[in-house]
Amino acid sequence: MATRIGIVGLGQIARKQHVPTILADANFTLAGLADLAGGEPIAGLPIHNDHQAMLAACALDAVAICTPPAARFANARDALLAGKHVLLEKPPAATMGEAEALVELAARCGRVVYASWHSQCNHAVEAARLFLANKHLARLRVDWHEDFRVYHPDQDWIWQADGLGVFDMAINALSVISRLFTPPPFVRSAELYIAENHAAPLAAKIRFGALDSAGPLELQANWGHVGPAQRELHMITRCGHDVVLLDSGGTLVIDGKVTVQEVRAEYPMLYARFAELLRRGESEADLTPLQMTLDALALGKRVALLRFEG
Amino acid sequence: MATRIGIVGLGQIARKQHVPTILADANFTLAGLADLAGGEPIAGLPIHNDHQAMLAACALDAVAICTPPAARFANARDALLAGKHVLLEKPPAATMGEAEALVELAARCGRVVYASWHSQCNHAVEAARLFLANKHLARLRVDWHEDFRVYHPDQDWIWQADGLGVFDMAINALSVISRLFTPPPFVRSAELYIAENHAAPLAAKIRFGALDSAGPLELQANWGHVGPAQRELHMITRCGHDVVLLDSGGTLVIDGKVTVQEVRAEYPMLYARFAELLRRGESEADLTPLQMTLDALALGKRVALLRFEG
Repeated sequence: MATRIGIVGLGQIARKQHVPTILADANFTLAGLADLAGGEPIAGLPIHNDHQAMLAACALDAVAICTPPAARFANARDALLAGKHVLLEKPPAATMGEAEALVELAARCGRVVYASWHSQCNHAVEAARLFLANKHLARLRVDWHEDFRVYHPDQDWIWQADGLGVFDMAINALSVISRLFTPPPFVRSAELYIAENHAAPLAAKIRFGALDSAGPLELQANWGHVGPAQRELHMITRCGHDVVLLDSGGTLVIDGKVTVQEVRAEYPMLYARFAELLRRGESEADLTPLQMTLDALALGKRVALLRFEG
Repeated sequence: MATRIGIVGLGQIARKQHVPTILADANFTLAGLADLAGGEPIAGLPIHNDHQAMLAACALDAVAICTPPAARFANARDALLAGKHVLLEKPPAATMGEAEALVELAARCGRVVYASWHSQCNHAVEAARLFLANKHLARLRVDWHEDFRVYHPDQDWIWQADGLGVFDMAINALSVISRLFTPPPFVRSAELYIAENHAAPLAAKIRFGALDSAGPLELQANWGHVGPAQRELHMITRCGHDVVLLDSGGTLVIDGKVTVQEVRAEYPMLYARFAELLRRGESEADLTPLQMTLDALALGKRVALLRFEG
């Protein structure tokens, strides 16, 4: 029996990734849609004006929450209380407290919650994780640079105080770091570069610490980047191996040799993971990428930038 | 055998509370001191210029870390690596990642770490916790207002981005909330009032959510307060009980009747707890108050205030 799944929040990520992935996956049947802005039917399904209307009208087993982060907690809470399993787009909630409360609520309701991170769903990331297991990290340098105007035109919610700014995309890098290392590096200090017309940073630097490394461990992320996107992790192990993840986790290069190179198929892998969690009746919630983001936003030194038009 | 304990960071809280409490507690012997600013000997003990010099020169079983939060991680890490048990003043570290890493490191080293919260160490708080157990919260209103100029003249580190601002004191209220409720309320949104000459807030509002309450659950904290300090939690349960903690957790009033009223003796109770943890070989680290603080600082809406001279 396929899992009947609804989607709340029909923005770019839902339309480009979730809808086509669900329609192509025999484990799932798309069975409900909701968006505050309404809109024309998709795949023959009407778009309800809010998630409660969708929950009332549609026969669903699960709900994928794809709204902006500030709305996610209430959407997910109501879905769990209605007895649905929940898949959360990244990040799982606006605050760590909300995210932990959703995990607790899912357990109380006997339902599965999956806090998904699409950038973790790459074979190159998994191969890097296996290679790095039991090795010590000597250096980490992450560069995650995109042109906001190419990827997210007119998405003003990102620049609100609770929209996360550049961390809406840099959290993908943090999710890869969290997947690669156990325990993961942790935020020691940060700088936040904030345009004068924004409340959230356009660019950021993070310096990490790690119990098993003297560093330097650094991330730089910039959404004011011009030119081709750069999404790379460069790692050097204490025993001298050079490990590079390129193309947002699509390509793995170890000691100069391309080990994995493939067209990323993150959302099919992400939904395959959700199907497996549903079969097992297990929740999965890696909250470390959100914690890293909030640590950096809370204590980062703020540097003022000129106005940014995006 | 008394535990030989050193103190790192001889600011106001160490001199007013830790030193006299240790000297009066038969479970402990004051055996080492360190402060970057040096100074005259205390209780016959010289003040070393940094924590590593103290660790090298003094025979210690444990160390109390009383430096500003940004320095705490390195102080505590080095003490644990030197084989000492660690008592952390509040908050336990600057970031959640640092705090979790210290808990992990203590476990690896087989040493006790105690992330202490002095405002949890009150009989009235414990009596309130027992009364509220298995009751549902209908309303919570916290007012935590002090005149910064009375309590912390010239402590400029508080107004740095990593100094926490008003949360340096409001985290005491959050530590009481964390102790009273399981699971605790969580941050949904916040407002941060920041003076133009500061990087950290002078005042803040937090709106909480809770899985078992429809709210309203609110905290207001202000370090620009003039007049007698106000440190109060007002709670109403769903079954209609009125529970009030006054005087920073020193007085408990239930349904209009004073149930506990005493002169607070937080640090003697705090060190008694540390002695008990050392006897048992168990760590204790409630990180929820720090998580609430960082959630609020990360996503709070920033409101500009005029210059503040404190």
